[in-house]
Amino acid sequence: MDAITTAKKAAGEKAASLVHPGMLVGLGTGSTAYWAIKKIGEMVKEGLNIQAVATSLASEKQARELGIPITSFSEIQQLDIDIDGADEVSEDLQIIKGGGGSLLREKIVALASRKRIIVADERKYVKTLGKFPLPLEIVPFGWELVFKTLQTLQGVPTLRTKDDQPYITDNGNYIIDCSFGVIKDPVQLHQQLKMITGIVETGLFLNLQPTVIIAYENGEIKAI
Amino acid sequence: MDAITTAKKAAGEKAASLVHPGMLVGLGTGSTAYWAIKKIGEMVKEGLNIQAVATSLASEKQARELGIPITSFSEIQQLDIDIDGADEVSEDLQIIKGGGGSLLREKIVALASRKRIIVADERKYVKTLGKFPLPLEIVPFGWELVFKTLQTLQGVPTLRTKDDQPYITDNGNYIIDCSFGVIKDPVQLHQQLKMITGIVETGLFLNLQPTVIIAYENGEIKAI
Repeated sequence: MDAITTAKKAAGEKAASLVHPGMLVGLGTGSTAYWAIKKIGEMVKEGLNIQAVATSLASEKQARELGIPITSFSEIQQLDIDIDGADEVSEDLQIIKGGGGSLLREKIVALASRKRIIVADERKYVKTLGKFPLPLEIVPFGWELVFKTLQTLQGVPTLRTKDDQPYITDNGNYIIDCSFGVIKDPVQLHQQLKMITGIVETGLFLNLQPTVIIAYENGEIKAI
Repeated sequence: MDAITTAKKAAGEKAASLVHPGMLVGLGTGSTAYWAIKKIGEMVKEGLNIQAVATSLASEKQARELGIPITSFSEIQQLDIDIDGADEVSEDLQIIKGGGGSLLREKIVALASRKRIIVADERKYVKTLGKFPLPLEIVPFGWELVFKTLQTLQGVPTLRTKDDQPYITDNGNYIIDCSFGVIKDPVQLHQQLKMITGIVETGLFLNLQPTVIIAYENGEIKAI
């Protein structure tokens, strides 16, 4: 296991240790959340009694295979804790997510949680957001118009593909990854983007007051 | 044919008469747009050369059966004219749409059009919006949370159903019809709703500067 994977594993396991009996838990998506879910699976096998909502079909599959009881928002309307990764976390704890393609469900779950734990390796921790192109979940019909609109906003959009076809989210939408350079005012950018017809959700996770667990390649773990 | 159907037919045909050779045309959805598409189909059979983008799978089917050439936003990025119905048109020409379930594509097409023609029978023409519950296209995952949020905004939401199952839009989403009483400030309401994670689009079609063709049961037609 390379240093960065070891760091992700450590951060994921640290986050899992915050899950207590009886909790309703949001399960994130991605290479760091993976380790948290794996650890929670072990804890469930050892008798931990929780219920979880998954932020992607992939995480739901992983959780089910590990025996973690899965529930849904038809049963419960608030979660106690949500554990998820990030593509960028700024010093003031604003976040970009969506590199894994699950930003919409991730945001719905994050907003439904009383406490949010973000796990990330040190490469994701930045002074200001914007190096990572912002993922936007968009409606397939007329996506070309959204693409053009983003260009008029000085964005540099790319339609995400998989096997030369548009990448399709769990919700049947497309994703555009859009560079805006340094994002000085993420709240304003988010609002501006949300008002565009065809954009379902942005990868800007703002003002969520998360606890961020950063794993360093040297093995250190810091909670911010 | 009853008086209201006759009125719808007259309004639809009046709108169709605004379509000229070479135009790129948006085809709306619903019981009045139906008559416009039917008329355009006749015009195409008589030699009218146009291309169209449809706002629903149903309208696309109707258009194809009538021999209207269908294109898409991968080919063209702007339309010359869009003809669509409405559920409510206020005196200051703000509009509620979505009763037919196609509000998202209808809005995308309307925004892509240089000229918008709204056809409606007199029952839809009101002083202020709000008698017709506002249709909202929403993401199925976590729709229960959006429902709750709407209640906190003093809305009275209902999940639209069909055969006892949630109604599914052409984009794979659900629709919530939400009463807010008289809508005094549609722009503010629209912005507020658009910022809610899980709401893909609202049925408020605002500041589109449409030409509105109203058909009266007495046979009169007025363009506003």
